[in-house]
Amino acid sequence: MNDISSQAASLKWNEQGLVPAIAQDWQTGEVLMLAWMNREALELTVREGRAIYWSRSRGALWRKGESSGNVQQLKELRIDCDADTVLMKVEQVGDIACHTGRRSCFYQRLENGEWQVTDPVLQDPEAIYGKS
Amino acid sequence: MNDISSQAASLKWNEQGLVPAIAQDWQTGEVLMLAWMNREALELTVREGRAIYWSRSRGALWRKGESSGNVQQLKELRIDCDADTVLMKVEQVGDIACHTGRRSCFYQRLENGEWQVTDPVLQDPEAIYGKS
Repeated sequence: MNDISSQAASLKWNEQGLVPAIAQDWQTGEVLMLAWMNREALELTVREGRAIYWSRSRGALWRKGESSGNVQQLKELRIDCDADTVLMKVEQVGDIACHTGRRSCFYQRLENGEWQVTDPVLQDPEAIYGKS
Repeated sequence: MNDISSQAASLKWNEQGLVPAIAQDWQTGEVLMLAWMNREALELTVREGRAIYWSRSRGALWRKGESSGNVQQLKELRIDCDADTVLMKVEQVGDIACHTGRRSCFYQRLENGEWQVTDPVLQDPEAIYGKS
């Protein structure tokens, strides 16, 4: 495989040097989450074969699953027509992508004009991350 | 249905007043595109039942399909745990979401270290938009 760095260079990074990255379950198609990547995160994602994001709140690389064990194994990587968004098809280890203990971060649906929680907590976040 | 405006107010709009919005085929689960919404675009999306984005390049509301006819009918609207990303399940009229005439904007896949075009052009963009 050619080095990813030259391919990463062709993306249109925003003014913060980031692109949005969508993680989608490679088998069910469920959209699990959207987070952000800088160029280093994208390159590491490809090299390590697992989703690695840039945490905007922490200002640091975020190896998804490093605390929880809920790693996202990379199955496929795509970019869009404008080369400013990444789409990953992943195998979600532990079946939990969300820090709330749910499968997907998109667990709130607009129903009758209000956001309704539609998806169950599969594991208590305290059990995932430990009590602080 | 309650007015969407109060629900829209609860989202975390970025410094430009925008959130990323993912459009996903409501039946196949295919991710079709990612674009951006401001608060007005989100409210209009709900009120009109079709995807309406904010075009960052044009600095104007973008009624998806207004030129091409390839409207995205809204089937379901979700937000994520951080309330800073929108996920729409849509019916893609005309089966073409991308301005290149492809079904999805994510038609480039990383293969052997290079971005490869994997999906066919279904309709010539000149036929969709007319010659300029």
